[in-house]
Amino acid sequence: MWQLYQFPLCPFSRKIRLLLAEKGEPFELVRESPWQRRDEFIDLNPAGQTPVLVEPQKGVTLIDSGAMAEYFEETIDKAPMIQGTAANRAEIRRLVAWFDDGLYRDVVAPLIEERMRKRLVSRDAPDTRVLRDAMRVANSHLDYLDYLLDHRRWLAGPALSLADLAAAAHLSVADYLGGLDWRGHKQTKDWYAVMKSRPSFRPLLGERMEVISPPAHYDKVDF
Amino acid sequence: MWQLYQFPLCPFSRKIRLLLAEKGEPFELVRESPWQRRDEFIDLNPAGQTPVLVEPQKGVTLIDSGAMAEYFEETIDKAPMIQGTAANRAEIRRLVAWFDDGLYRDVVAPLIEERMRKRLVSRDAPDTRVLRDAMRVANSHLDYLDYLLDHRRWLAGPALSLADLAAAAHLSVADYLGGLDWRGHKQTKDWYAVMKSRPSFRPLLGERMEVISPPAHYDKVDF
Ligand SMILES: N[C@@H](CCC(=O)N[C@@H](CS)C(=O)NCC(=O)O)C(=O)O
Ligand SMILES: N[C@@H](CCC(=O)N[C@@H](CS)C(=O)NCC(=O)O)C(=O)O
Repeated sequence: MWQLYQFPLCPFSRKIRLLLAEKGEPFELVRESPWQRRDEFIDLNPAGQTPVLVEPQKGVTLIDSGAMAEYFEETIDKAPMIQGTAANRAEIRRLVAWFDDGLYRDVVAPLIEERMRKRLVSRDAPDTRVLRDAMRVANSHLDYLDYLLDHRRWLAGPALSLADLAAAAHLSVADYLGGLDWRGHKQTKDWYAVMKSRPSFRPLLGERMEVISPPAHYDKVDF
Repeated sequence: MWQLYQFPLCPFSRKIRLLLAEKGEPFELVRESPWQRRDEFIDLNPAGQTPVLVEPQKGVTLIDSGAMAEYFEETIDKAPMIQGTAANRAEIRRLVAWFDDGLYRDVVAPLIEERMRKRLVSRDAPDTRVLRDAMRVANSHLDYLDYLLDHRRWLAGPALSLADLAAAAHLSVADYLGGLDWRGHKQTKDWYAVMKSRPSFRPLLGERMEVISPPAHYDKVDF
Protein backbone atom coordinates (compact mmCIF):
# COMPACT_ATOMS: atom_id res chain seq x y z
CA MET A 1 0.00 0.00 0.00
CA TRP A 2 1.06 3.61 -0.57
CA GLN A 3 2.49 5.41 2.43
CA LEU A 4 1.93 9.17 2.40
CA TYR A 5 4.39 11.26 4.40
CA GLN A 6 2.48 14.34 5.51
CA PHE A 7 1.21 16.50 8.36
CA PRO A 8 -2.46 17.45 8.83
CA LEU A 9 -2.17 21.05 7.59
CA CYS A 10 -0.01 20.44 4.50
CA PRO A 11 -2.22 21.59 1.58
CA PHE A 12 -0.28 19.66 -1.09
CA SER A 13 -0.77 16.44 0.90
CA ARG A 14 -4.47 17.26 1.23
CA LYS A 15 -4.76 17.61 -2.54
CA ILE A 16 -3.22 14.13 -2.97
CA ARG A 17 -5.39 12.63 -0.23
CA LEU A 18 -8.49 13.94 -2.01
CA LEU A 19 -7.23 12.59 -5.34
CA LEU A 20 -6.42 9.10 -4.00
CA ALA A 21 -9.75 8.89 -2.18
CA GLU A 22 -11.71 9.94 -5.29
CA LYS A 23 -9.83 7.29 -7.30
CA GLY A 24 -10.41 4.62 -4.64
CA GLU A 25 -6.67 3.99 -4.23
CA PRO A 26 -5.81 2.90 -0.65
CA PHE A 27 -3.03 4.64 1.29
CA GLU A 28 -1.88 5.06 4.86
CA LEU A 29 -0.64 8.21 6.51
CA VAL A 30 2.85 8.61 7.94
CA ARG A 31 3.31 11.72 10.05
CA GLU A 32 6.22 13.90 8.91
CA SER A 33 7.04 17.43 10.09
CA PRO A 34 9.29 18.85 7.36
CA TRP A 35 10.48 21.71 9.59
CA GLN A 36 12.31 19.13 11.72
CA ARG A 37 14.47 18.25 8.69
CA ARG A 38 14.86 14.63 9.77
CA ASP A 39 17.90 13.02 8.12
CA GLU A 40 16.00 9.95 6.91
CA PHE A 41 13.35 12.20 5.36
CA ILE A 42 15.96 14.34 3.53
CA ASP A 43 17.43 11.09 2.20
CA LEU A 44 13.98 10.22 0.87
CA ASN A 45 13.34 13.68 -0.61
CA PRO A 46 16.35 16.00 -0.97
CA ALA A 47 13.91 18.93 -1.25
CA GLY A 48 12.85 18.16 2.34
CA GLN A 49 9.17 18.72 1.57
CA THR A 50 5.92 16.89 2.12
CA PRO A 51 4.10 15.13 0.49
CA VAL A 52 6.18 12.06 -0.37
CA LEU A 53 4.54 8.78 -1.42
CA VAL A 54 6.29 5.42 -1.07
CA GLU A 55 5.09 2.04 -2.31
CA PRO A 56 7.56 -0.45 -0.77
CA GLN A 57 6.26 -3.49 -2.71
CA LYS A 58 6.51 -1.72 -6.07
CA GLY A 59 9.76 0.04 -5.10
CA VAL A 60 8.27 3.38 -6.24
CA THR A 61 8.86 6.76 -4.53
CA LEU A 62 6.88 9.76 -5.74
CA ILE A 63 7.92 13.33 -4.94
CA ASP A 64 6.08 16.57 -5.76
CA SER A 65 2.30 16.69 -5.70
CA GLY A 66 2.15 17.66 -9.39
CA ALA A 67 4.19 14.62 -10.41
CA MET A 68 1.96 12.47 -8.15
CA ALA A 69 -1.26 13.75 -9.70
CA GLU A 70 -0.02 13.03 -13.24
CA TYR A 71 1.18 9.58 -12.14
CA PHE A 72 -2.24 8.56 -10.82
CA GLU A 73 -4.01 10.04 -13.85
CA GLU A 74 -1.80 7.85 -16.03
CA THR A 75 -2.10 4.66 -13.99
CA ILE A 76 -5.70 4.68 -12.66
CA ASP A 77 -8.62 5.03 -15.06
CA LYS A 78 -11.24 5.64 -12.36
CA ALA A 79 -12.36 9.21 -11.67
CA PRO A 80 -10.24 11.12 -14.21
CA MET A 81 -9.36 14.53 -12.80
CA ILE A 82 -7.34 16.00 -15.72
CA GLN A 83 -9.84 15.34 -18.46
CA GLY A 84 -11.35 16.71 -21.68
CA THR A 85 -9.60 18.17 -24.72
CA ALA A 86 -5.94 19.19 -24.61
CA ALA A 87 -7.11 22.80 -24.10
CA ASN A 88 -9.43 21.78 -21.21
CA ARG A 89 -6.55 19.88 -19.63
CA ALA A 90 -4.31 22.94 -19.97
CA GLU A 91 -6.96 25.04 -18.21
CA ILE A 92 -7.15 22.52 -15.33
CA ARG A 93 -3.35 22.61 -14.98
CA ARG A 94 -3.26 26.43 -15.19
CA LEU A 95 -5.66 26.66 -12.24
CA VAL A 96 -3.82 24.02 -10.21
CA ALA A 97 -0.62 26.07 -10.70
CA TRP A 98 -2.54 29.24 -9.74
CA PHE A 99 -3.59 27.66 -6.43
CA ASP A 100 -0.35 25.76 -5.72
CA ASP A 101 1.82 28.80 -6.49
CA GLY A 102 -0.16 32.00 -5.88
CA LEU A 103 -2.81 31.01 -3.33
CA TYR A 104 -0.26 28.96 -1.41
CA ARG A 105 2.50 31.61 -1.47
CA ASP A 106 0.34 34.64 -0.64
CA VAL A 107 -2.25 33.14 1.72
CA VAL A 108 -1.67 29.59 2.94
CA ALA A 109 2.10 29.66 3.54
CA PRO A 110 2.00 32.89 5.63
CA LEU A 111 -0.94 31.51 7.67
CA ILE A 112 0.97 28.25 8.30
CA GLU A 113 4.07 30.22 9.28
CA GLU A 114 2.35 32.71 11.59
CA ARG A 115 -0.38 30.55 13.14
CA MET A 116 1.14 27.06 13.07
CA ARG A 117 4.93 26.99 12.81
CA LYS A 118 5.56 29.94 15.14
CA ARG A 119 3.18 28.42 17.67
CA LEU A 120 4.58 24.87 17.49
CA VAL A 121 8.26 25.49 16.84
CA SER A 122 9.70 28.93 17.50
CA ARG A 123 7.04 30.11 19.97
CA ASP A 124 7.17 33.66 18.60
CA ALA A 125 4.03 35.77 18.46
CA PRO A 126 2.39 35.93 15.03
CA ASP A 127 3.07 39.04 12.94
CA THR A 128 -0.34 40.70 12.68
CA ARG A 129 0.65 42.72 9.61
CA VAL A 130 1.56 39.55 7.71
CA LEU A 131 -1.74 37.96 8.80
CA ARG A 132 -3.73 40.99 7.67
CA ASP A 133 -2.06 40.94 4.24
CA ALA A 134 -2.70 37.21 3.84
CA MET A 135 -6.38 37.65 4.68
CA ARG A 136 -6.71 40.56 2.27
CA VAL A 137 -5.23 38.48 -0.57
CA ALA A 138 -7.42 35.53 0.48
CA ASN A 139 -10.42 37.73 -0.16
CA SER A 140 -9.29 38.55 -3.68
CA HIS A 141 -8.75 34.84 -4.34
CA LEU A 142 -12.32 34.16 -3.20
CA ASP A 143 -13.45 36.91 -5.61
CA TYR A 144 -11.66 35.14 -8.45
CA LEU A 145 -13.33 31.82 -7.55
CA ASP A 146 -16.73 33.58 -7.46
CA TYR A 147 -15.99 34.90 -10.94
CA LEU A 148 -15.03 31.45 -12.27
CA LEU A 149 -18.14 29.88 -10.74
CA ASP A 150 -20.35 32.54 -12.29
CA HIS A 151 -19.36 31.10 -15.66
CA ARG A 152 -18.75 27.43 -14.94
CA ARG A 153 -20.26 24.56 -12.99
CA TRP A 154 -16.88 23.55 -11.54
CA LEU A 155 -13.75 25.67 -11.35
CA ALA A 156 -12.14 24.53 -14.62
CA GLY A 157 -15.30 23.71 -16.59
CA PRO A 158 -18.27 21.34 -16.70
CA ALA A 159 -16.67 18.52 -14.65
CA LEU A 160 -15.08 18.12 -11.23
CA SER A 161 -11.31 18.23 -11.76
CA LEU A 162 -7.96 18.46 -10.04
CA ALA A 163 -8.48 22.25 -9.99
CA ASP A 164 -11.38 21.79 -7.54
CA LEU A 165 -9.36 19.38 -5.38
CA ALA A 166 -6.38 21.76 -5.30
CA ALA A 167 -8.49 24.83 -4.46
CA ALA A 168 -10.42 22.96 -1.74
CA ALA A 169 -7.18 21.60 -0.25
CA HIS A 170 -5.61 25.06 0.07
CA LEU A 171 -8.80 26.76 1.23
CA SER A 172 -9.42 24.09 3.86
CA VAL A 173 -6.02 24.82 5.44
CA ALA A 174 -6.61 28.58 5.28
CA ASP A 175 -10.06 28.05 6.84
CA TYR A 176 -8.66 25.82 9.61
CA LEU A 177 -6.23 28.62 10.48
CA GLY A 178 -8.99 31.24 10.62
CA GLY A 179 -7.82 33.02 7.46
CA LEU A 180 -11.08 33.11 5.46
CA ASP A 181 -14.06 35.40 5.75
CA TRP A 182 -16.83 33.74 3.73
CA ARG A 183 -19.25 36.68 3.82
CA GLY A 184 -20.01 38.02 0.34
CA HIS A 185 -18.76 34.92 -1.45
CA LYS A 186 -21.94 32.96 -2.03
CA GLN A 187 -20.84 31.16 -5.20
CA THR A 188 -17.61 29.89 -3.68
CA LYS A 189 -19.32 29.06 -0.40
CA ASP A 190 -21.92 26.92 -2.18
CA TRP A 191 -19.19 25.18 -4.18
CA TYR A 192 -17.14 24.58 -1.01
CA ALA A 193 -20.17 23.14 0.80
CA VAL A 194 -20.51 20.59 -2.02
CA MET A 195 -16.78 19.77 -1.81
CA LYS A 196 -17.02 19.36 1.98
CA SER A 197 -19.86 16.87 1.65
CA ARG A 198 -17.89 14.50 -0.60
CA PRO A 199 -16.78 11.29 1.16
CA SER A 200 -13.17 12.03 0.10
CA PHE A 201 -13.23 15.21 2.19
CA ARG A 202 -14.58 13.77 5.46
CA PRO A 203 -11.33 12.37 6.88
CA LEU A 204 -9.61 15.73 6.40
CA LEU A 205 -12.34 17.65 8.21
CA GLY A 206 -12.27 15.26 11.15
CA GLU A 207 -8.55 15.55 11.74
CA ARG A 208 -6.86 17.97 14.13
CA MET A 209 -3.37 19.45 14.30
CA GLU A 210 -2.00 19.26 17.84
CA VAL A 211 -2.46 22.44 19.96
CA ILE A 212 -4.25 24.38 17.18
CA SER A 213 -8.06 24.31 17.01
CA PRO A 214 -10.06 25.36 13.95
CA PRO A 215 -12.99 27.79 14.13
CA ALA A 216 -16.40 26.25 14.90
CA HIS A 217 -17.66 26.41 11.30
CA TYR A 218 -14.60 24.58 9.93
CA ASP A 219 -15.99 21.05 9.68
CA LYS A 220 -19.66 21.97 9.13
CA VAL A 221 -21.07 21.32 5.66
CA ASP A 222 -23.60 24.04 6.48
CA PHE A 223 -21.50 27.04 7.50
CA MET B 1 1.39 30.40 -35.37
CA TRP B 2 1.99 30.41 -31.62
CA GLN B 3 2.91 33.76 -30.11
CA LEU B 4 5.08 33.51 -27.01
CA TYR B 5 4.91 36.44 -24.60
CA GLN B 6 8.30 36.58 -22.88
CA PHE B 7 11.47 38.54 -22.13
CA PRO B 8 14.99 37.26 -22.89
CA LEU B 9 15.92 36.35 -19.30
CA CYS B 10 12.67 34.59 -18.28
CA PRO B 11 13.76 31.00 -17.50
CA PHE B 12 10.26 29.51 -17.82
CA SER B 13 9.95 31.02 -21.32
CA ARG B 14 13.39 29.61 -22.17
CA LYS B 15 12.24 26.13 -21.15
CA ILE B 16 9.24 26.42 -23.51
CA ARG B 17 11.38 27.84 -26.33
CA LEU B 18 13.70 24.82 -26.04
CA LEU B 19 10.73 22.44 -25.98
CA LEU B 20 9.02 23.97 -29.03
CA ALA B 21 12.29 24.04 -30.98
CA GLU B 22 13.03 20.38 -30.13
CA LYS B 23 9.53 19.44 -31.28
CA GLY B 24 9.84 21.50 -34.48
CA GLU B 25 6.76 23.59 -33.62
CA PRO B 26 7.03 27.14 -35.03
CA PHE B 27 6.44 30.18 -32.80
CA GLU B 28 7.18 33.88 -32.77
CA LEU B 29 8.33 35.96 -29.84
CA VAL B 30 6.35 38.84 -28.38
CA ARG B 31 8.29 40.96 -25.90
CA GLU B 32 6.54 41.34 -22.53
CA SER B 33 8.01 42.79 -19.32
CA PRO B 34 5.78 41.42 -16.56
CA TRP B 35 7.09 43.98 -14.04
CA GLN B 36 5.31 46.69 -16.06
CA ARG B 37 1.97 45.01 -15.28
CA ARG B 38 0.43 46.09 -18.58
CA ASP B 39 -3.40 46.03 -18.40
CA GLU B 40 -3.79 44.03 -21.63
CA PHE B 41 -1.32 41.46 -20.34
CA ILE B 42 -3.12 41.09 -16.99
CA ASP B 43 -6.33 40.56 -18.97
CA LEU B 44 -4.56 37.76 -20.84
CA ASN B 45 -3.04 36.19 -17.70
CA PRO B 46 -4.47 37.30 -14.34
CA ALA B 47 -1.31 35.93 -12.68
CA GLY B 48 0.63 38.62 -14.58
CA GLN B 49 3.48 36.23 -15.40
CA THR B 50 5.41 35.21 -18.49
CA PRO B 51 5.34 32.90 -20.41
CA VAL B 52 1.94 33.06 -22.11
CA LEU B 53 1.29 31.33 -25.45
CA VAL B 54 -1.50 32.42 -27.78
CA GLU B 55 -2.63 30.74 -31.01
CA PRO B 56 -5.10 33.22 -32.55
CA GLN B 57 -6.27 30.85 -35.35
CA LYS B 58 -7.01 28.02 -32.91
CA GLY B 59 -8.34 30.40 -30.24
CA VAL B 60 -6.11 28.74 -27.63
CA THR B 61 -4.31 30.55 -24.79
CA LEU B 62 -1.85 28.60 -22.65
CA ILE B 63 -0.69 29.83 -19.25
CA ASP B 64 1.92 28.29 -16.93
CA SER B 65 4.97 26.59 -18.37
CA GLY B 66 4.05 23.25 -16.75
CA ALA B 67 0.61 23.26 -18.40
CA MET B 68 2.28 24.22 -21.71
CA ALA B 69 4.79 21.37 -21.53
CA GLU B 70 2.05 18.79 -20.88
CA TYR B 71 -0.05 20.29 -23.71
CA PHE B 72 2.72 19.86 -26.29
CA GLU B 73 3.55 16.37 -25.01
CA GLU B 74 -0.09 15.45 -25.57
CA THR B 75 -0.50 17.07 -28.98
CA ILE B 76 2.89 16.58 -30.71
CA ASP B 77 4.39 13.10 -31.05
CA LYS B 78 7.82 14.28 -32.19
CA ALA B 79 10.65 14.43 -29.63
CA PRO B 80 8.83 13.18 -26.51
CA MET B 81 10.28 14.87 -23.43
CA ILE B 82 8.19 13.23 -20.68
CA GLN B 83 8.74 9.64 -21.68
CA GLY B 84 9.27 6.10 -20.35
CA THR B 85 7.31 4.24 -17.66
CA ALA B 86 4.96 6.04 -15.30
CA ALA B 87 7.75 6.00 -12.69
CA ASN B 88 10.28 7.48 -15.17
CA ARG B 89 7.77 10.18 -16.05
CA ALA B 90 7.29 10.96 -12.36
CA GLU B 91 11.07 11.30 -11.96
CA ILE B 92 11.21 13.74 -14.91
CA ARG B 93 8.41 15.80 -13.37
CA ARG B 94 10.03 15.70 -9.89
CA LEU B 95 13.21 17.21 -11.33
CA VAL B 96 11.37 19.84 -13.37
CA ALA B 97 9.61 20.92 -10.15
CA TRP B 98 12.96 20.91 -8.33
CA PHE B 99 14.40 23.34 -10.89
CA ASP B 100 11.26 25.46 -11.41
CA ASP B 101 10.67 25.80 -7.66
CA GLY B 102 13.96 25.46 -5.76
CA LEU B 103 16.62 26.49 -8.29
CA TYR B 104 14.42 29.35 -9.50
CA ARG B 105 13.47 30.61 -6.02
CA ASP B 106 16.91 30.37 -4.41
CA VAL B 107 19.22 31.25 -7.32
CA VAL B 108 17.60 32.55 -10.51
CA ALA B 109 14.90 34.83 -9.04
CA PRO B 110 17.33 36.68 -6.69
CA LEU B 111 19.84 37.10 -9.56
CA ILE B 112 17.07 38.51 -11.80
CA GLU B 113 15.94 40.84 -9.02
CA GLU B 114 19.40 42.12 -8.04
CA ARG B 115 21.17 42.19 -11.40
CA MET B 116 18.33 42.80 -13.86
CA ARG B 117 15.20 44.33 -12.32
CA LYS B 118 17.04 46.72 -9.99
CA ARG B 119 19.24 47.84 -12.87
CA LEU B 120 16.43 48.31 -15.39
CA VAL B 121 13.55 49.43 -13.21
CA SER B 122 14.27 50.73 -9.72
CA ARG B 123 17.93 51.69 -10.34
CA ASP B 124 18.91 50.59 -6.82
CA ALA B 125 22.32 49.02 -6.21
CA PRO B 126 22.26 45.21 -5.95
CA ASP B 127 22.32 43.72 -2.44
CA THR B 128 25.68 41.92 -2.30
CA ARG B 129 24.59 39.66 0.57
CA VAL B 130 21.61 38.39 -1.43
CA LEU B 131 23.91 37.80 -4.43
CA ARG B 132 26.44 35.92 -2.31
CA ASP B 133 23.71 33.65 -0.88
CA ALA B 134 22.31 32.96 -4.37
CA MET B 135 25.76 31.99 -5.66
CA ARG B 136 26.38 29.72 -2.69
CA VAL B 137 23.10 27.88 -3.28
CA ALA B 138 23.89 27.78 -7.03
CA ASN B 139 27.00 25.85 -6.15
CA SER B 140 25.06 23.25 -4.18
CA HIS B 141 22.65 22.88 -7.10
CA LEU B 142 25.61 22.22 -9.41
CA ASP B 143 26.81 19.60 -6.88
CA TYR B 144 23.42 17.89 -7.09
CA LEU B 145 23.55 17.88 -10.90
CA ASP B 146 27.09 16.40 -10.75
CA TYR B 147 25.71 13.66 -8.51
CA LEU B 148 22.80 12.90 -10.87
CA LEU B 149 25.14 12.81 -13.88
CA ASP B 150 27.51 10.42 -12.07
CA HIS B 151 24.69 7.89 -12.19
CA ARG B 152 22.80 8.78 -15.35
CA ARG B 153 23.47 9.75 -18.96
CA TRP B 154 20.92 12.61 -18.80
CA LEU B 155 19.49 14.25 -15.67
CA ALA B 156 16.39 12.09 -15.31
CA GLY B 157 17.70 8.84 -16.87
CA PRO B 158 18.89 7.36 -20.17
CA ALA B 159 17.16 9.88 -22.47
CA LEU B 160 17.09 13.64 -22.94
CA SER B 161 13.95 14.92 -21.19
CA LEU B 162 12.12 18.01 -20.01
CA ALA B 163 14.31 17.86 -16.88
CA ASP B 164 17.37 18.68 -19.01
CA LEU B 165 15.55 21.50 -20.80
CA ALA B 166 14.33 22.99 -17.50
CA ALA B 167 17.76 22.78 -15.83
CA ALA B 168 19.51 24.27 -18.87
CA ALA B 169 16.94 27.07 -19.09
CA HIS B 170 17.44 28.14 -15.46
CA LEU B 171 21.22 27.70 -15.50
CA SER B 172 21.53 29.72 -18.72
CA VAL B 173 19.83 32.69 -17.05
CA ALA B 174 21.98 32.33 -13.91
CA ASP B 175 25.09 32.10 -16.13
CA TYR B 176 24.08 35.19 -18.16
CA LEU B 177 23.80 37.12 -14.89
CA GLY B 178 27.25 35.97 -13.73
CA GLY B 179 25.87 33.74 -10.97
CA LEU B 180 27.66 30.46 -11.75
CA ASP B 181 31.20 29.37 -11.00
CA TRP B 182 31.79 26.26 -13.15
CA ARG B 183 35.09 25.25 -11.55
CA GLY B 184 34.92 21.84 -9.90
CA HIS B 185 31.73 20.80 -11.71
CA LYS B 186 33.12 18.81 -14.62
CA GLN B 187 30.12 16.48 -15.07
CA THR B 188 27.60 19.30 -15.22
CA LYS B 189 29.90 21.42 -17.38
CA ASP B 190 30.24 18.60 -19.94
CA TRP B 191 26.47 18.08 -19.93
CA TYR B 192 25.85 21.82 -20.33
CA ALA B 193 28.33 22.00 -23.25
CA VAL B 194 26.26 19.32 -24.99
CA MET B 195 23.03 21.22 -24.27
CA LYS B 196 24.55 24.48 -25.58
CA SER B 197 25.52 22.83 -28.87
CA ARG B 198 21.95 21.75 -29.66
CA PRO B 199 20.29 23.76 -32.45
CA SER B 200 17.36 24.50 -30.09
CA PHE B 201 19.74 26.37 -27.75
CA ARG B 202 21.48 28.62 -30.33
CA PRO B 203 18.83 31.36 -30.57
CA LEU B 204 18.84 31.76 -26.77
CA LEU B 205 22.61 32.13 -26.58
CA GLY B 206 22.66 34.73 -29.34
CA GLU B 207 20.10 36.99 -27.71
CA ARG B 208 20.87 39.93 -25.40
CA MET B 209 18.86 41.70 -22.71
CA GLU B 210 19.16 45.47 -23.13
CA VAL B 211 21.84 47.19 -20.97
CA ILE B 212 23.01 43.91 -19.36
CA SER B 213 25.92 41.99 -20.94
CA PRO B 214 26.70 38.36 -20.12
CA PRO B 215 30.23 37.20 -19.19
CA ALA B 216 32.52 36.28 -22.11
CA HIS B 217 32.13 32.50 -21.66
CA TYR B 218 28.30 32.68 -21.74
CA ASP B 219 27.66 31.79 -25.38
CA LYS B 220 30.77 29.60 -25.93
CA VAL B 221 30.17 25.86 -26.29
CA ASP B 222 33.76 25.43 -25.11
CA PHE B 223 33.89 27.38 -21.84
N1 LIG C 1 6.05 21.52 -5.06
C1 LIG C 1 5.81 20.78 -3.84
C2 LIG C 1 5.59 21.74 -2.68
C3 LIG C 1 5.48 21.03 -1.35
C4 LIG C 1 5.61 21.99 -0.14
O1 LIG C 1 5.83 23.19 -0.29
N2 LIG C 1 5.47 21.40 1.07
C5 LIG C 1 5.60 22.16 2.30
C6 LIG C 1 4.59 21.72 3.34
S1 LIG C 1 2.93 22.05 2.86
C7 LIG C 1 6.94 21.87 2.92
O2 LIG C 1 7.34 20.72 3.02
N3 LIG C 1 7.66 22.92 3.37
C8 LIG C 1 8.89 22.78 4.05
C9 LIG C 1 10.05 23.31 3.24
O3 LIG C 1 9.84 23.81 2.11
O4 LIG C 1 11.17 23.25 3.77
C10 LIG C 1 4.62 19.85 -4.05
O5 LIG C 1 3.72 20.21 -4.84
O6 LIG C 1 4.60 18.75 -3.51
N1 LIG D 1 4.52 28.92 -12.72
C1 LIG D 1 4.88 29.88 -13.75
C2 LIG D 1 5.97 30.81 -13.24
C3 LIG D 1 6.26 31.95 -14.20
C4 LIG D 1 7.09 33.07 -13.57
O1 LIG D 1 7.42 33.08 -12.38
N2 LIG D 1 7.42 34.09 -14.42
C5 LIG D 1 8.18 35.24 -13.97
C6 LIG D 1 9.19 35.68 -15.01
S1 LIG D 1 10.46 34.51 -15.27
C7 LIG D 1 7.23 36.43 -13.82
O2 LIG D 1 6.43 36.67 -14.69
N3 LIG D 1 7.35 37.16 -12.70
C8 LIG D 1 6.59 38.34 -12.47
C9 LIG D 1 5.61 38.17 -11.35
O3 LIG D 1 5.54 37.07 -10.74
O4 LIG D 1 4.91 39.15 -11.07
C10 LIG D 1 5.31 29.12 -15.00
O5 LIG D 1 5.85 28.02 -14.87
O6 LIG D 1 5.04 29.60 -16.12
